[in-house]
Amino acid sequence: MAQTDDIPIVAVDGGGTSCRFALLHAGRRHEAKLGGANVMTDCDRAIRTIRDGISGLAAEAGLGETGLARAVAYLGLAGVRSEDLARRVAGALAVGKVLVEDDRPSTVVAAFGSGDGTVAGIGTGSFVARQREGAISALGGWGFHLGDEASGAWLGRLALARCLHAIDGICAPSPLTDSLLAEFGDRPDRMMEFARDARPAEFGRFAPRVIEAAAAGDANGRVLMQRGADYIMDAARALGWQPGEALCLAGGIGPHYREYLPAEAAGAVTAPRGSTLDGALELAGRLAAGALEPMR
Amino acid sequence: MAQTDDIPIVAVDGGGTSCRFALLHAGRRHEAKLGGANVMTDCDRAIRTIRDGISGLAAEAGLGETGLARAVAYLGLAGVRSEDLARRVAGALAVGKVLVEDDRPSTVVAAFGSGDGTVAGIGTGSFVARQREGAISALGGWGFHLGDEASGAWLGRLALARCLHAIDGICAPSPLTDSLLAEFGDRPDRMMEFARDARPAEFGRFAPRVIEAAAAGDANGRVLMQRGADYIMDAARALGWQPGEALCLAGGIGPHYREYLPAEAAGAVTAPRGSTLDGALELAGRLAAGALEPMR
Repeated sequence: MAQTDDIPIVAVDGGGTSCRFALLHAGRRHEAKLGGANVMTDCDRAIRTIRDGISGLAAEAGLGETGLARAVAYLGLAGVRSEDLARRVAGALAVGKVLVEDDRPSTVVAAFGSGDGTVAGIGTGSFVARQREGAISALGGWGFHLGDEASGAWLGRLALARCLHAIDGICAPSPLTDSLLAEFGDRPDRMMEFARDARPAEFGRFAPRVIEAAAAGDANGRVLMQRGADYIMDAARALGWQPGEALCLAGGIGPHYREYLPAEAAGAVTAPRGSTLDGALELAGRLAAGALEPMR
Repeated sequence: MAQTDDIPIVAVDGGGTSCRFALLHAGRRHEAKLGGANVMTDCDRAIRTIRDGISGLAAEAGLGETGLARAVAYLGLAGVRSEDLARRVAGALAVGKVLVEDDRPSTVVAAFGSGDGTVAGIGTGSFVARQREGAISALGGWGFHLGDEASGAWLGRLALARCLHAIDGICAPSPLTDSLLAEFGDRPDRMMEFARDARPAEFGRFAPRVIEAAAAGDANGRVLMQRGADYIMDAARALGWQPGEALCLAGGIGPHYREYLPAEAAGAVTAPRGSTLDGALELAGRLAAGALEPMR
């Protein structure tokens, strides 16, 4: 283990809304945060963001090219669901050893270390994972267009769709739908144009409005939050979660679902042990120590 | 009225999957059918299709440029929900008088002439409209990204999402989800990539599979058809439809929902008097006769 002490360790926690970086070197921890890195919807852009983040921290830490070439990096990136995509990102980095995975392992490690429990990782996208005796099973995370239920992008899109139902008289309008419509100049055609071109993170920008409105009792906001909470429960149960087992709500959106869960689940909610970036850093440490296999 | 008899009359019925054309000239009716014309998702391409269709029919009818310049055209195009978009299409046509609207008026006229009733126009996209004493009220038709519930594109996308739920154990798999997954080589990541880039008509290509599977008793197919039928009922009721009033299921997908409607609605279902192209032709005749105002 002594040998690994002078190896610079890099961790990346990449999501649709923001991308966080940590570098451990010479006993110091450097951190940075940049914009979203959605590998699934815009891989080239995501790679640029990741390279910028890593080279920025390396400069701050006084690491030159040769220093980075000795480093070990673990990247937990939302949306990396194919080996090809992971290899493409890994291949673009000037770091010695690299492992690129989706953000499930880092979220699970952040939530429970190596302990048991079920975690719903709900940010711009979403997934649910369960750790049981060291083995992880997971579901969801299929991306904005077919899945990512309960996510920020999903909440934002449903809120806009709900505005159109309110116009149509299919549901009653509320302060939430009124204010969202007003943002488009009360022009639903502008909302349609926005939706045609918007990326997941752009839909996700409306999610905090849904969360706040629901907390203030807005009927439409509560319907949407309840629908997201129902999905989390369906997913947790499909993975085998049972009352009494820890349930962690992670990510920027996850914790807000707590009050919409049934009592047996709300009572089981635990705070994560650390951030997802901490989880990625722990995995980078395992990679440096040889407990995980790098991709190159 | 005698004066209008030698004016060539053009009608266009444009949807996401196909675009149909009719031209009445010198006592003959010419017809043509081309691929989809989705003005909302790809306006330039839609305009090219529409120009090709009209010039093809004009050539067949022996109409030169001067002949077309005397013609009157009515276009009912799915997705034309803004004045700007309609004017852009109208401005691109070398026809004397033009009126471009969405496909609601032509669908209502096709269903009921000037009589009373509620019509669900369900093709690649969807809307619901009600005619009452000559006045039309309508809802839906907000496009693939935020609406078009019950449409072919909506059914196709939900069917793919259902496959991912089956993989996740959130619902049970069925012949429908098995066969759709097999089409992507049992590689859900390929399905995700398809969904990221697919246009509405590409999702809509899976709709006939959902309809057939549901008719054969497939549990997942039936859930999706029921959800679409529930939307149609919510929409019809929001417009004021009541048992006893005619309910017309139009478009390529519409008629298939009949058996999923509650008895009071299924019993009220009537066949449309003519096709949507016939409806557009009737509106083109009204335009030629001066009963409708052209855009230019």
